[in-house]
Amino acid sequence: MAGNSIGQLFRVTTFGESHGVALGCIIDGCPPGLEINEAMIQKDLDRRRPGTSRYTTQRREPDQVKILAGVFEGKTTGTSIGLMIENTDQRSKDYSNIKDMFRPGHADYTYHQKYGTRDYRGGGRSSARETAMRVAAGVIAKEYLKQHHGVEIHGYLSELGPVKAENIDFSQIEQNPFFFPDESKLEELDEFMRALKKEGDSIGARLSIVAKQVPVGLGEPVFDRLDADIAHALMGINAVKAVEIGDGFAVVNQRGSEHRDEMMPEGFSSNHAGGVLGGISSGQDVVAHIALKPTSSITVPGQTIDKYGKPVEVVTKGRHDPCVGIRAVPIAEAMLAIVLMDHCLRQRGQNGAVATETPILR
Amino acid sequence: MAGNSIGQLFRVTTFGESHGVALGCIIDGCPPGLEINEAMIQKDLDRRRPGTSRYTTQRREPDQVKILAGVFEGKTTGTSIGLMIENTDQRSKDYSNIKDMFRPGHADYTYHQKYGTRDYRGGGRSSARETAMRVAAGVIAKEYLKQHHGVEIHGYLSELGPVKAENIDFSQIEQNPFFFPDESKLEELDEFMRALKKEGDSIGARLSIVAKQVPVGLGEPVFDRLDADIAHALMGINAVKAVEIGDGFAVVNQRGSEHRDEMMPEGFSSNHAGGVLGGISSGQDVVAHIALKPTSSITVPGQTIDKYGKPVEVVTKGRHDPCVGIRAVPIAEAMLAIVLMDHCLRQRGQNGAVATETPILR
Amino acid sequence: MAGNSIGQLFRVTTFGESHGVALGCIIDGCPPGLEINEAMIQKDLDRRRPGTSRYTTQRREPDQVKILAGVFEGKTTGTSIGLMIENTDQRSKDYSNIKDMFRPGHADYTYHQKYGTRDYRGGGRSSARETAMRVAAGVIAKEYLKQHHGVEIHGYLSELGPVKAENIDFSQIEQNPFFFPDESKLEELDEFMRALKKEGDSIGARLSIVAKQVPVGLGEPVFDRLDADIAHALMGINAVKAVEIGDGFAVVNQRGSEHRDEMMPEGFSSNHAGGVLGGISSGQDVVAHIALKPTSSITVPGQTIDKYGKPVEVVTKGRHDPCVGIRAVPIAEAMLAIVLMDHCLRQRGQNGAVATETPILR
Amino acid sequence: MAGNSIGQLFRVTTFGESHGVALGCIIDGCPPGLEINEAMIQKDLDRRRPGTSRYTTQRREPDQVKILAGVFEGKTTGTSIGLMIENTDQRSKDYSNIKDMFRPGHADYTYHQKYGTRDYRGGGRSSARETAMRVAAGVIAKEYLKQHHGVEIHGYLSELGPVKAENIDFSQIEQNPFFFPDESKLEELDEFMRALKKEGDSIGARLSIVAKQVPVGLGEPVFDRLDADIAHALMGINAVKAVEIGDGFAVVNQRGSEHRDEMMPEGFSSNHAGGVLGGISSGQDVVAHIALKPTSSITVPGQTIDKYGKPVEVVTKGRHDPCVGIRAVPIAEAMLAIVLMDHCLRQRGQNGAVATETPILR
Repeated sequence: MAGNSIGQLFRVTTFGESHGVALGCIIDGCPPGLEINEAMIQKDLDRRRPGTSRYTTQRREPDQVKILAGVFEGKTTGTSIGLMIENTDQRSKDYSNIKDMFRPGHADYTYHQKYGTRDYRGGGRSSARETAMRVAAGVIAKEYLKQHHGVEIHGYLSELGPVKAENIDFSQIEQNPFFFPDESKLEELDEFMRALKKEGDSIGARLSIVAKQVPVGLGEPVFDRLDADIAHALMGINAVKAVEIGDGFAVVNQRGSEHRDEMMPEGFSSNHAGGVLGGISSGQDVVAHIALKPTSSITVPGQTIDKYGKPVEVVTKGRHDPCVGIRAVPIAEAMLAIVLMDHCLRQRGQNGAVATETPILR
Repeated sequence: MAGNSIGQLFRVTTFGESHGVALGCIIDGCPPGLEINEAMIQKDLDRRRPGTSRYTTQRREPDQVKILAGVFEGKTTGTSIGLMIENTDQRSKDYSNIKDMFRPGHADYTYHQKYGTRDYRGGGRSSARETAMRVAAGVIAKEYLKQHHGVEIHGYLSELGPVKAENIDFSQIEQNPFFFPDESKLEELDEFMRALKKEGDSIGARLSIVAKQVPVGLGEPVFDRLDADIAHALMGINAVKAVEIGDGFAVVNQRGSEHRDEMMPEGFSSNHAGGVLGGISSGQDVVAHIALKPTSSITVPGQTIDKYGKPVEVVTKGRHDPCVGIRAVPIAEAMLAIVLMDHCLRQRGQNGAVATETPILR
Repeated sequence: MAGNSIGQLFRVTTFGESHGVALGCIIDGCPPGLEINEAMIQKDLDRRRPGTSRYTTQRREPDQVKILAGVFEGKTTGTSIGLMIENTDQRSKDYSNIKDMFRPGHADYTYHQKYGTRDYRGGGRSSARETAMRVAAGVIAKEYLKQHHGVEIHGYLSELGPVKAENIDFSQIEQNPFFFPDESKLEELDEFMRALKKEGDSIGARLSIVAKQVPVGLGEPVFDRLDADIAHALMGINAVKAVEIGDGFAVVNQRGSEHRDEMMPEGFSSNHAGGVLGGISSGQDVVAHIALKPTSSITVPGQTIDKYGKPVEVVTKGRHDPCVGIRAVPIAEAMLAIVLMDHCLRQRGQNGAVATETPILR
Repeated sequence: MAGNSIGQLFRVTTFGESHGVALGCIIDGCPPGLEINEAMIQKDLDRRRPGTSRYTTQRREPDQVKILAGVFEGKTTGTSIGLMIENTDQRSKDYSNIKDMFRPGHADYTYHQKYGTRDYRGGGRSSARETAMRVAAGVIAKEYLKQHHGVEIHGYLSELGPVKAENIDFSQIEQNPFFFPDESKLEELDEFMRALKKEGDSIGARLSIVAKQVPVGLGEPVFDRLDADIAHALMGINAVKAVEIGDGFAVVNQRGSEHRDEMMPEGFSSNHAGGVLGGISSGQDVVAHIALKPTSSITVPGQTIDKYGKPVEVVTKGRHDPCVGIRAVPIAEAMLAIVLMDHCLRQRGQNGAVATETPILR
């Protein structure tokens, strides 16, 4: 059944397969009067775009976004926004080798079981190429949040295999192809990736996403909590296997006296909670972390079966990222932005306004 | 705005505060003909119920559930089911001490900011007491899954502070008040809890939830993926700060050649994925882990402010669990059951049937 | 699947059968701070209540509503509101005569086919008794609309069989048991009903519902238009077979030059549109009309079949209204109020505010 | 907020303005394996297309639909379907005369009040041009219903101004540009339209839509009833002011003994109900009627105001239908098909199957 939409008041619905005619999305519920243009959207698409470094897939798609509707004279009209990216690089590749087999670790098997059929060209709908439209929609949410509430969202690579960022410097993030905030470890990271590529293997990653200047009061208990919706949005990114808010799993061995963020007239004394209390934003930074599995598209041979149940060996050829986690940074930012914007509108629906500065505390 | 519902085809909506007249829920979309009675529901409510051991709050509520509608002659009719638990233990307690202050680590501050008001009696709607109705609704989902697909769901405490279950024996889980599967460490756990209680402090916990015999094909890409919906449901439980599916954060340092679960004609050779590939169930066990923060209701004094911005010291008196994670076991099971059942109905809507045995494999 | 909810931001979900333990509803999304109490709700319930005149069913239920949650110190808290009416008049009636047969014109046959089972006691879930909860929820919407926007909603009986109101006097509506606004025809109406009752037959009705002071800008094109949502809500009332907005079917023979409501600086020159243009409220009165079929619960014998396909004769005994349309007046008001309130919140979510006075015009 | 989607399991979301770059839609939830191609969709688009007769607008758009995603090797894959129609006829017309004024009877005023802005080119989003995508989506629903359940849907013009079809012959419908089923009155209709055009005025219309072979059991009481959802979908068509199911407003003066459709072992003896009882399909023909207002785009001068509140006179120039009701026939069919398909999937979700032949009866 229907499952390609996210959001309640600000709702994003996508279509498109890796090797179909086009990718597209409808953004429904964006308030009128927001300044939006294709160049703004393109900027983030280019951050996600493959082929930007030697460590991401060499598929070269211009990923040129077109605004088809919903924007008039440079501003949103309040009606639904249509976006499209045509697939230009549809190499007439021969897929006969994977057409009937299930690549281990991929969605081949589950799509086949669910639908009884699948578009096997480049992974079809299960391809991460689909996320381009999430990034595009996310730009609109980011712009809204920035223009209306001053919210800023930063994503970065916090770990890749054994390499862990320790000195987090936000100004470094966009200075390297890894979205990596720790300059002192860039060389180590680069070496690790080079060796990995030679082996034809892949690696997992941990990303962190921080939203600053988040209004207080976002989130609808008891099920549509802000943190629950963030978890939904982030876990829904291809390859994500885990989500943390604030201290995440570290809370297992924390004491209540240590974890609770005490409050002073000047503000909270710490942010173990990651900006959410009782499912509602507290006005502190919203902090989330996610883990992305290593891609299964590797040249190391593996065992699997074909759709007749026969055992076969598989080797994934073609253009693939050794670490899909890297390019997921703008995707994660986009998903967080979409959730925050949706909850801003929900809170406005409830109260008529969203607190733009943290009340009481200050 | 509305936020107290979960699920699309099988939808649970709840109401109720800690010290209100009653808690209740409406379960909408349960297929007709399912055998349900109050005793079945009561059994799981009693597992969650406070006052069952010296390590959980001593508030004694019978938590007696009543079926008000939707069941006729012992079976569901297909119309909406109404459940209610009356609050009998509404001690006429004096709340004047916390009425105007925000307990750190609680939802007091965020509820006040969101709503401009709050029911301060026992935490009001933000109290974990609300989860009783989730457990009740979960029983119906569990029964459906068991009766129709043979699904079994087991939750257990996998870590509590420094104590970690190592030998997982499912038969132990219901033999101790901690839902702890490792008999060899029960004494250590007991001692830790005793010491903690003496200190008036609290501790976090890690829970694991496993669903066996899950049909293949559940989940709706790209946003309503099974894992995304599980993350949403589990992160929506009070105090949860993190969710993992399968290997979770461990994937950060896994290689693709190690992580991908190879397939043989007899089945998958491993289950790093935790039963979900591309957002769709693979027929393997669905495995999830969650982290619950230590409760902030402790007798260790803390700094906070009142609603006028003035600094005050807070000490939470009353009946509280030193580890809220323990009693969350049946809640987590319930939430997983609700998501799985919803996706069973969604898959049935799409295909007319849900695969009852894993096809192709084996 | 789930189908017992209405509304997006202001969402009402109901449960309950004619002869079950209780009827109830959850009202989710009501903003905090609204003054609500049981007496307010009771007032409208009493308007709908059976047994108030000799022309409505003689079943005597006190229909005493209880607020179970969501209201604290006389005001809504912003969390979900739980309401309940216990069924006290559950006569241990013998239903064996209709248990296996399908009363013509009733939902017996369709419920049986849909669910494979049905609660045959008094119509179960298909009984109009279920609408008591709609009236209760509608009171909350009415109060919100009145307190925030000055909206007033009036429903009345405009036709009953051959008797048609011609001089519409709103002040008459609550002065007679028919909600009939034309005093000059009351006697005719009374006589018609007396004769009808003697025959054991029933009659259809036309109701009109008018909302005054509706804010401009409500409604979400292109599918969730205000008029489309009103049509949905009104057609969803038991026995309703038709819905008109404004001039309704009369437009078939109108010219464009006659129908279009011209605009002057002082306002619109007419209201053929019934207050909705392009699916959005214009600030004029929202006017709707509905037709309710004659109830099939009559003592005139009829032909039908039982669940084995055998032909049988049916005579409905018991307490029934000769015209179910009459008591539907408060139900129709409630449904209109629910839709208007939902759209007020939706508009507030979009724009941050709802226009409280018609701009530009005047 | 979001409002451009219809349907729960089979969900259609649209974008596009009259004079934007393109119109498009996403069809989410279509089961896999359905044979679909552009030619099928084009056929119905051509039925709706302007310029097909001298009584519909002379704007000539090829309205060429493209399938962008969701169909592979001629069949749906189960993932979201993307459709697009590029706007080729975007005459660089001068809109300065209507840019700042509100045409009476149009959505100009309400869009301006709701959004604070509007795309004034050809009505923008409020243009009936948007309905092209509904027709396109409707074809997919029609195909599903036909291929799976043998459902056939026929729409026709039953009244236009004073001209009323009396001898309904379904085979005539596609033989004339009016979708008019009564050959004996075609000349009268033609003459009426010719005179009307000369006057520069417009006229209303009544359409009838019949679905045959509808499975029994569709519809979800108590709010998502089949008839309520049909009313929502049909009232949501541009210019529609009224909806009837079965006998509609005629029930006001019917007796219960006359209205109730008696049941015989061979079937129902009549169909006053229009195929819906208690909100659930009975297996009889689903019959609906709608009224469409006369378009306000006429050359007869009218009074209105501009956005500064100043009185002005308006004359609508350009290409317009004297009766928009005519071309609404395929739109109404499409909307009915979308609702029926959605409810087929919902019923399948509930019961695992949809009854393909009427059980018990016959």
